[in-house]
Amino acid sequence: MDLYTRHDRRAVPDEAMQALSSTFGSRFNTSMAVREHHGKDESPYPACPPDAVVFAESVEDVIEAVRICSQYKVPLVPFGIGSSMEGHIHPVQGGITLDMSGMNKVLAVNAEDFTVTVQPGVLRLQLNDEIRDTGLFFPIDPGANASLGGMAATRASGTNAVKYGTMRENVVSLKVVTADGSLIRTSSRARKSSSGYDLTRLYVGSEGTLGIIVEVTVRVYPLPEAVSAAICNFPTLQSAVDSVIQIMQAGVPVARVEFMDDRAVRAVNSYSKLTLKETPLLLFEFHGSPAAVEEHAQLAQEITKDNGGMDFEWAVNPEDRSRLWTARHKGYYAGLQMRPGARSVSTDVCVPISRLADCVTQTVTDLEQMLFPFKIVGHVGDGNFHVQMLLDPDSQDEWAKSEEINRRLVLRAIRMDGTCSGEHGVGIHKMAFLKDEHGEKALEVMRKIKHALDPDNIFNPGKMVSWD
Amino acid sequence: MDLYTRHDRRAVPDEAMQALSSTFGSRFNTSMAVREHHGKDESPYPACPPDAVVFAESVEDVIEAVRICSQYKVPLVPFGIGSSMEGHIHPVQGGITLDMSGMNKVLAVNAEDFTVTVQPGVLRLQLNDEIRDTGLFFPIDPGANASLGGMAATRASGTNAVKYGTMRENVVSLKVVTADGSLIRTSSRARKSSSGYDLTRLYVGSEGTLGIIVEVTVRVYPLPEAVSAAICNFPTLQSAVDSVIQIMQAGVPVARVEFMDDRAVRAVNSYSKLTLKETPLLLFEFHGSPAAVEEHAQLAQEITKDNGGMDFEWAVNPEDRSRLWTARHKGYYAGLQMRPGARSVSTDVCVPISRLADCVTQTVTDLEQMLFPFKIVGHVGDGNFHVQMLLDPDSQDEWAKSEEINRRLVLRAIRMDGTCSGEHGVGIHKMAFLKDEHGEKALEVMRKIKHALDPDNIFNPGKMVSWD
Repeated sequence: MDLYTRHDRRAVPDEAMQALSSTFGSRFNTSMAVREHHGKDESPYPACPPDAVVFAESVEDVIEAVRICSQYKVPLVPFGIGSSMEGHIHPVQGGITLDMSGMNKVLAVNAEDFTVTVQPGVLRLQLNDEIRDTGLFFPIDPGANASLGGMAATRASGTNAVKYGTMRENVVSLKVVTADGSLIRTSSRARKSSSGYDLTRLYVGSEGTLGIIVEVTVRVYPLPEAVSAAICNFPTLQSAVDSVIQIMQAGVPVARVEFMDDRAVRAVNSYSKLTLKETPLLLFEFHGSPAAVEEHAQLAQEITKDNGGMDFEWAVNPEDRSRLWTARHKGYYAGLQMRPGARSVSTDVCVPISRLADCVTQTVTDLEQMLFPFKIVGHVGDGNFHVQMLLDPDSQDEWAKSEEINRRLVLRAIRMDGTCSGEHGVGIHKMAFLKDEHGEKALEVMRKIKHALDPDNIFNPGKMVSWD
Repeated sequence: MDLYTRHDRRAVPDEAMQALSSTFGSRFNTSMAVREHHGKDESPYPACPPDAVVFAESVEDVIEAVRICSQYKVPLVPFGIGSSMEGHIHPVQGGITLDMSGMNKVLAVNAEDFTVTVQPGVLRLQLNDEIRDTGLFFPIDPGANASLGGMAATRASGTNAVKYGTMRENVVSLKVVTADGSLIRTSSRARKSSSGYDLTRLYVGSEGTLGIIVEVTVRVYPLPEAVSAAICNFPTLQSAVDSVIQIMQAGVPVARVEFMDDRAVRAVNSYSKLTLKETPLLLFEFHGSPAAVEEHAQLAQEITKDNGGMDFEWAVNPEDRSRLWTARHKGYYAGLQMRPGARSVSTDVCVPISRLADCVTQTVTDLEQMLFPFKIVGHVGDGNFHVQMLLDPDSQDEWAKSEEINRRLVLRAIRMDGTCSGEHGVGIHKMAFLKDEHGEKALEVMRKIKHALDPDNIFNPGKMVSWD
């Protein structure tokens, strides 16, 4: 994978290294082990070590690091916990990685306002642990135990998005350090506002290219009084998708609805010793009052039956729900066991839900030409799905083929009025497709914003939009 | 009201007028009646006529108008139906108003994807009429029968926002003509995406200052199977707000919850010959399945009772619901009757809900020093409220006092971590407060975006952020 040659690594001036070293002391680290750890995320890309790592512990640290990098025009890449999927945090032009994991405090819980304010290094599970006694929870669940700063920067979502939205809808306000070392706040804590440009949404999903997020205020929600779960097999993917559309059109507030293809079911059966019928399958979850969740599961059952759904099973108590959802929760690891020792490559796209069955079906046809195993899971309610491909780590040929699959998948999704990434983000892997998706003119608008807010191109350079 | 003197009216070159005239023929209009009509919205500000009005009928028309205005550096202000509240469409630097009302077609209804694509001149009620047979509806209801382009440009919301969100959450994608006359699309129709900067949200709420919106794709929702409404009196505002917080914390999905102060109730009683108890009052609406809406109304009743709520009344059939909601729907006109012939001045702020009772109470204390009548209504679930002041139209003193009330109200809301406008927008009336709310550094980021995307300052100049 000859990924980094198109980028020139920018030389970091000795004065910059000295300034950082004298400012941060032992929190400035140039050891290869630390640099390599910070040059790699959960993507299949090899490590691209920064020249040094700075461990930030405060807003003032971030401002200092930005000022020094700005003065010497040194690339600066924020790093949460490294759980991104597409090569977001690889410093492809070299420079400094700013490790935010030391900024890990929950700063304020405003239970009456349904907001929580955290430092960017706070992890998702940590946040839910710390607010449990308020009866509230933070619903965005990308699977990984990601940092809130990273989730904001990559516009993360996950299985709960159909009901609760993504980071786009759930970040209330950010504090950001801009290129000149200023600290700004993007919004008040009001639930809505029509005052000023929506800077919050501009930084959400900007992947570290416009500034460094140093504080995140998110919305939280009451823990549902009752939860019901259901599982249902389908003869075809189309019948499963039709069911979901009709359930949503009936006004049933689905909290989660996950699709697994027959390969994914087979993998889970094998990995978790389950006996699920190996056909396309949907997993539902409904949140609400006891009467509502029962009513919703029943209505879902009727609709799935009309569409040929089989073996509908539903559950309200936690143990039974957990049994139904085991299949989905173990999906990733079950996938890895489809080819022990393989390199797992994931990609995700999102299309209007009416095109989901078509998009998946065509993608399966494409994948069936390949010799490597794969499986597909999806967040059906959003039209979002993931392909996991298991490659021989030593085979350049398989890598090339999987990249070609990815390319065709992305272009297919874009033709269907969808996006090259529903939730994984752009990183290295999807950057080449932004022109296909957005068009050159929209990309030019993005580039103008990048130039205006990061005039020396210090923030995660070489990502999102090319500089010229 | 000496509003426009701080702005220099920019001379429109004859060549520009001639180019527009020869391009648009009879759709280029310089009559004073047409210009005055387009120089005024629903705010109390006097008309500020543009030099001419162009009636656009197509995207190509908009591109042509932008190209000519760009070439001659002439201000260009889009105009939907003129229902904005804060002086948004007043061309304070002169120039051309671009009337979008001729672009009024619903372009696509994608019922399976829950999206509708419209031209910007489509009106809210028209849209709901045209999609009625799909079983879907567009929930954003700012009161006025506004255009979708205007609602997107001002980040409008209204009574349904607590459940369905605002234009921020409900615009899926926009087409926009940029300063160089390019046509861009801000997003695909996928429900979620983590690809690229969020240009959709950047243009939503930009009030015509960054480009001209020529197409809007919005989310639509299934018409609720059942609706219940409830009304309840309270001894104090605090007890009403506490009830709403506890109802939301209990996970009850409130669709609407409106507050009326005792003055508003008195005005409505008088105007609509009702006999509502003249105390602070809440109106609820719940959307869902029949069992759910009954359950939700009952739970709401229990919680209001715990907080001293009185005379809780609830209804599920349409006639009874309509009777309960009459009070709220007639609120604005009832307010006007508090002082026949008066000039009505409205302002809105939004604070974290925990601060709402405090903010309203302090504002009432302030208003009680005045001799003019006023009333307060609010979207409690969002922490958003409106003050309607009825002024002697000939009294400069009353106008000055109402402006001072507005100033103190806005600064109070900002101190409480709120915003100078929850839903009316910035326009002329709130522009001076953006620095207080966002801080000079964040305003500087907004200004950099404005400079980058509108380098000749042609789009609604003199609004949102000052040029330098």
